[in-house]
Amino acid sequence: MAEKEIKKILLAYSGGLDTSVAIKWLQDKYDAEIITYTAHLGQPQDWDAVEEKAMATGASKAYIDDIREEFITDYVYPALKVNAMYQEKYPLATALARPLISKRMVEIAQKEGVDALAHGCTGKGNDQVRFEVSFKALAPEMKIIAPLRDWEFVSRDAEIEYAEANGIPVKATKDSPYSIDQNLWGISIECGILEDPWAEPPADAYQWTKDVDDTPDKPKYITIDFEKGIPVAIDGEKMAPIDLVEKLNEMGSEYGVGRIDMLEDRLVGIKSREIYEAPAGEILIKAHKALEDLTLDRDTKNYKAEMSAKYAELTYNGLWFSPLRDALDAFVDKSQQTVTGTVKVKLYKASCTLAGRKSEYSLYDHGLATYDESDNFDHKAAPGFINLWALPVQVANKKKREE
Amino acid sequence: MAEKEIKKILLAYSGGLDTSVAIKWLQDKYDAEIITYTAHLGQPQDWDAVEEKAMATGASKAYIDDIREEFITDYVYPALKVNAMYQEKYPLATALARPLISKRMVEIAQKEGVDALAHGCTGKGNDQVRFEVSFKALAPEMKIIAPLRDWEFVSRDAEIEYAEANGIPVKATKDSPYSIDQNLWGISIECGILEDPWAEPPADAYQWTKDVDDTPDKPKYITIDFEKGIPVAIDGEKMAPIDLVEKLNEMGSEYGVGRIDMLEDRLVGIKSREIYEAPAGEILIKAHKALEDLTLDRDTKNYKAEMSAKYAELTYNGLWFSPLRDALDAFVDKSQQTVTGTVKVKLYKASCTLAGRKSEYSLYDHGLATYDESDNFDHKAAPGFINLWALPVQVANKKKREE
Amino acid sequence: MAEKEIKKILLAYSGGLDTSVAIKWLQDKYDAEIITYTAHLGQPQDWDAVEEKAMATGASKAYIDDIREEFITDYVYPALKVNAMYQEKYPLATALARPLISKRMVEIAQKEGVDALAHGCTGKGNDQVRFEVSFKALAPEMKIIAPLRDWEFVSRDAEIEYAEANGIPVKATKDSPYSIDQNLWGISIECGILEDPWAEPPADAYQWTKDVDDTPDKPKYITIDFEKGIPVAIDGEKMAPIDLVEKLNEMGSEYGVGRIDMLEDRLVGIKSREIYEAPAGEILIKAHKALEDLTLDRDTKNYKAEMSAKYAELTYNGLWFSPLRDALDAFVDKSQQTVTGTVKVKLYKASCTLAGRKSEYSLYDHGLATYDESDNFDHKAAPGFINLWALPVQVANKKKREE
Amino acid sequence: MAEKEIKKILLAYSGGLDTSVAIKWLQDKYDAEIITYTAHLGQPQDWDAVEEKAMATGASKAYIDDIREEFITDYVYPALKVNAMYQEKYPLATALARPLISKRMVEIAQKEGVDALAHGCTGKGNDQVRFEVSFKALAPEMKIIAPLRDWEFVSRDAEIEYAEANGIPVKATKDSPYSIDQNLWGISIECGILEDPWAEPPADAYQWTKDVDDTPDKPKYITIDFEKGIPVAIDGEKMAPIDLVEKLNEMGSEYGVGRIDMLEDRLVGIKSREIYEAPAGEILIKAHKALEDLTLDRDTKNYKAEMSAKYAELTYNGLWFSPLRDALDAFVDKSQQTVTGTVKVKLYKASCTLAGRKSEYSLYDHGLATYDESDNFDHKAAPGFINLWALPVQVANKKKREE
Repeated sequence: MAEKEIKKILLAYSGGLDTSVAIKWLQDKYDAEIITYTAHLGQPQDWDAVEEKAMATGASKAYIDDIREEFITDYVYPALKVNAMYQEKYPLATALARPLISKRMVEIAQKEGVDALAHGCTGKGNDQVRFEVSFKALAPEMKIIAPLRDWEFVSRDAEIEYAEANGIPVKATKDSPYSIDQNLWGISIECGILEDPWAEPPADAYQWTKDVDDTPDKPKYITIDFEKGIPVAIDGEKMAPIDLVEKLNEMGSEYGVGRIDMLEDRLVGIKSREIYEAPAGEILIKAHKALEDLTLDRDTKNYKAEMSAKYAELTYNGLWFSPLRDALDAFVDKSQQTVTGTVKVKLYKASCTLAGRKSEYSLYDHGLATYDESDNFDHKAAPGFINLWALPVQVANKKKREE
Repeated sequence: MAEKEIKKILLAYSGGLDTSVAIKWLQDKYDAEIITYTAHLGQPQDWDAVEEKAMATGASKAYIDDIREEFITDYVYPALKVNAMYQEKYPLATALARPLISKRMVEIAQKEGVDALAHGCTGKGNDQVRFEVSFKALAPEMKIIAPLRDWEFVSRDAEIEYAEANGIPVKATKDSPYSIDQNLWGISIECGILEDPWAEPPADAYQWTKDVDDTPDKPKYITIDFEKGIPVAIDGEKMAPIDLVEKLNEMGSEYGVGRIDMLEDRLVGIKSREIYEAPAGEILIKAHKALEDLTLDRDTKNYKAEMSAKYAELTYNGLWFSPLRDALDAFVDKSQQTVTGTVKVKLYKASCTLAGRKSEYSLYDHGLATYDESDNFDHKAAPGFINLWALPVQVANKKKREE
Repeated sequence: MAEKEIKKILLAYSGGLDTSVAIKWLQDKYDAEIITYTAHLGQPQDWDAVEEKAMATGASKAYIDDIREEFITDYVYPALKVNAMYQEKYPLATALARPLISKRMVEIAQKEGVDALAHGCTGKGNDQVRFEVSFKALAPEMKIIAPLRDWEFVSRDAEIEYAEANGIPVKATKDSPYSIDQNLWGISIECGILEDPWAEPPADAYQWTKDVDDTPDKPKYITIDFEKGIPVAIDGEKMAPIDLVEKLNEMGSEYGVGRIDMLEDRLVGIKSREIYEAPAGEILIKAHKALEDLTLDRDTKNYKAEMSAKYAELTYNGLWFSPLRDALDAFVDKSQQTVTGTVKVKLYKASCTLAGRKSEYSLYDHGLATYDESDNFDHKAAPGFINLWALPVQVANKKKREE
Repeated sequence: MAEKEIKKILLAYSGGLDTSVAIKWLQDKYDAEIITYTAHLGQPQDWDAVEEKAMATGASKAYIDDIREEFITDYVYPALKVNAMYQEKYPLATALARPLISKRMVEIAQKEGVDALAHGCTGKGNDQVRFEVSFKALAPEMKIIAPLRDWEFVSRDAEIEYAEANGIPVKATKDSPYSIDQNLWGISIECGILEDPWAEPPADAYQWTKDVDDTPDKPKYITIDFEKGIPVAIDGEKMAPIDLVEKLNEMGSEYGVGRIDMLEDRLVGIKSREIYEAPAGEILIKAHKALEDLTLDRDTKNYKAEMSAKYAELTYNGLWFSPLRDALDAFVDKSQQTVTGTVKVKLYKASCTLAGRKSEYSLYDHGLATYDESDNFDHKAAPGFINLWALPVQVANKKKREE
């Protein structure tokens, strides 16, 4: 079919050099109107400056979109309920943000009558997949453009030259050697010396969390209340989602909690070394699991643990808007009906340690568990249980010996 | 069929009150000769005193069996290769020892012409299952006796009275409030205040590891070399299995590493609160996983992660001598062919932190992973990949919107 | 605690010899009032005669409870939606009925103020577990009695003697050599020659389905309409659940469809040889899967296939009333939102063959799938896809060759 | 890096129109020498004619490679041992052949000093992936060319015109409306009316198997002996792998056994309707599973059933030469040590029915299973077993009721 002409493009805009250059490059290449979209997900930024820069660089309109609450409520908390960690370690901060940004961009694109969606991802990361799968799921009719994959700047210098020639401000300050993405649920850091998996991350790589030597000399105990799998209060004080997560990030950072050093497998087939900081993520997932230990029966807990890996994989791999994720959420929500209670954790010297858990739905039965006089477990049941439990193994071994 | 008369019993003997009383009780009840079996698995004990006590209490023979090396080599290391942790936390120290003790007891029982095997487990723990399933798998013809499940002492005091009446030494020292089991791979602590899941474990509950406040003020870096998934050297120095594990327990304990606070699901259907210390276990599993991150491809790593839970479950549930464990080991051994290399970790303030990993079999390819000029990843491949990766989700969402 | 005296017992009553003897035996042993409960699940029976026999044998009250609709709607259909087959073969007719019978018995027991629940299962089958786990889940305060496990008749003859001595009618007719249980969802047949796994089931073992040589010489095509995973019409005619299942049993039986010959693993640890007939089950599960092939995306379908085994296992093992089954149902229900459409099958010569499937929610896209001129698949996407898909394997093999 | 010039190409050659045109087209485009490779996998073909045609069309050399034995032994039997069926239905005939063909092509390419490997797959099938992933795994330095994905013939007619212009013989006979691929393990049929999932496959679509109405009026019983999971004899007569599979294909076809009608999910993201015939596959997998029912313990069997899906998926998705497949094979081989014995099946009226299984390693224990007098199962064990088995569900339900 004949390609539709592209007259209007909505570009995911960070305010940095790459996406600023992209505004100009897209205008040049497509002779199109450029609208920028910037998601406010809790990263520290001068939003007015971002908007100004977008307009100054040639955008006809610049959206700044505060989606923090929807992010926590509809993306982070569902992932928390299933304890989602990619390859057992990464709480998925960036991966969870991408589908929401995509969804918002599609909504705005439809309102603005845009012909194409553009993003500033390169060709070897996961984010390009997350954006584009989400775009295709939500608005397959939209054309997708990835300037950084398409343009022909042979080097960073060439790109800077282009920027200067086009009046795009290039930050005077020395660039960080790292590539960084952050939001309320965590921060991802890569590149530079981190590309050597034998090198320990240098102190300056971490952006939020204090080095253990700089942390307080007294432990901090906190309690977190959960309702149906969702955190609702810290130290007994009810808090809105954004506040609660910010508060835990703050406290965790102060105590050096939440650093992750990882060699992970990207969807695009390569291994990459990433470090992450996720103070709130580490604290909440640990606390949530501890509460589930108390309130979920063995079979549900074990089954859910397997599901957790699948959920994380789907999210990491850009398949958030998939029927499977919907169905997994239905399972998880059902499982969380009794995950209500309080967990106590201790923050101290770069560790978050479990210090207690209680719940009105506790399945821990002191009478069954205790070895003291109140023991009411039926000790006579065991021999019969063991007889039948052992039977398949006993028969199989008997056969083996007969050989 | 007519029950065979029991004339000779082999009893698993710890040297403590319960199994000492059991010697007498078994003699009384069965009018049988009692041989005791005590496994030396690295727990600190005066072995001569144990032997003496057994004989003094009425045993006709007392085996003290140093099985530390077989334990590490044939039980702990296979579990390490699959990163086995029950419910993601417990490295299975006690659970791994039981089948080996059972196997040795069966061997001695057959040599001694014994009619029955006896153990000192109660009726609500996992260990009775581990012993008895192993006995039934290896020697189903043997009768099994569990005195602590059968006898009728109404209280601890009654048992002590019986002991005193029969000249069995009752330790004068105040008993620990905790029930403890230990071996080279870790220590299990339960009972007392620990039965309250809301209570933080008191300082005196931990037996090996230093409290964070008592640990050194400088971090300690160590390197661990692995060959085919097995640790062979620390800081470049080759070490025999027992020495290596002991060394790591020592270093880990000094730095407060390896504490686990857990609410777990026992096989017999109850939840119980246990704390564990496993300094070597924590360090080795973390290091081993890090090396696998580098040397295993994504599919193998993810599949093995699922298998890990199954392996831990089998072990925890007493099914060590099962055909499935054999077959899982074959998978694992195959997967470890390239898990050779070096991992660097940092011990500091109760944490064991990853500090680097390298291997001649590394699948991390700097040229593919880097964002610097040496990048040789094919950036043009991504759009095609994404098109097909997105297709099922795109079609499914299209249908959904059409509804 | 002091055992409560048992004055009133509710007994699951089939009308056969064992449970009739149980009425008398329970009365004798407990000096208690006996109420009988008989579930009408579609098995052919003279219900008045059953009631009369119960009363004549000594029951004070005899419930005959038609629970066919609840059985199909709340037990069979949820299992159908997840295609549950134990060990890939058995559609779980008996296993699905037990929890419902248990639930109804508990309701009646509570209404009647009964002290104990009794069932007629032996000590080596699965059904005792299914009944008792359900009883314990729903009414743990009730005492459970299993006369057939407890009484001391040394042989069948002794039991018959007891029956005759107590005026319990013993059927004059020669007993079937088989033990049979049936309901709308299928029939289970065991014992006799079937206990030899090398023996082919003799013609007389099958109760419903015609031998292939006696089936019609023309195939029968039928269509089945599903709505959200549930069958609602045959050949376009809307049918109530009971009628629909009965109709398919009839048609399937006429064409020899639905025989299953199985060597299965019982929960109690033994292998047993069972044969089953499940004409409606075979037809509906095959049709339902075919519709899912068309309407579920790949990931959901594959994930659900694994879940299917788990669901069947839970059901087979008596864990119907478990939090995990509830949560699995939530997943399954979500997945069935688009499983609406029509499947055509052919019944002929003991086979049920797929003959077509269609749906307004079909994810089969002719334009993408076809090789004719209307092909609109992007053929240029493949090389990029393959490049990245192959990458992990390519890198791993390269390393392997370098060794 | 500078692209190496392509002077010599090894082309997978079927002898059909597409790959014949490809010889010419490759020569034209690359000005290169073309060597053809044709695998003899049991498909009926005049091998001399294939060779002649290749040479006549311009090849400099034409390999005809009989790889039937390696195919059965190293590809089909490993898949049989794990009962591999993609999406529970497809025994993977084509999918298993592709990696072997690729491996042989790489060997010949290296011997011949070839610069590029070419295949005749289109851009939307699975086979391109299977070939190319295998090529990249085994010889990543080779360039890969896919003429059918690259050339610009706008239609079949344009291709035929090109063929005629270049003196390539175009078969005079009316083409089959179907696209067919076959080897010893089965035949795949697609296209034409089959692209309508509502249409029943017409009689002429099936190539091997007789329509049920044309099958014999007497059943045929056969026995198959297995040794360690591998079939070695039919009706007691030892047979070499090729003969055994051919014999079963013959017998199965005669009785109408082995037809599969499937709507499957391709790796490239689309659903496609395929029909298959796999008489030997259906018979052997059914028989092998029946023998495993007898000789594997429950846990191994259930675990292996899950693994089976993974193995099939890897194979279907072109990942045969992957570390994960190697490791899975190690598991499977271990599990097959006792899968030795005999299975009896009945072929009749398009069905293959199980008629018996026996083994010296049988884990079926008549004494445990029987309800007759020889019963030696411990009926008193059940209550204890049930008490503990029910405990988690009992506690969870109690909590639920308390809410």
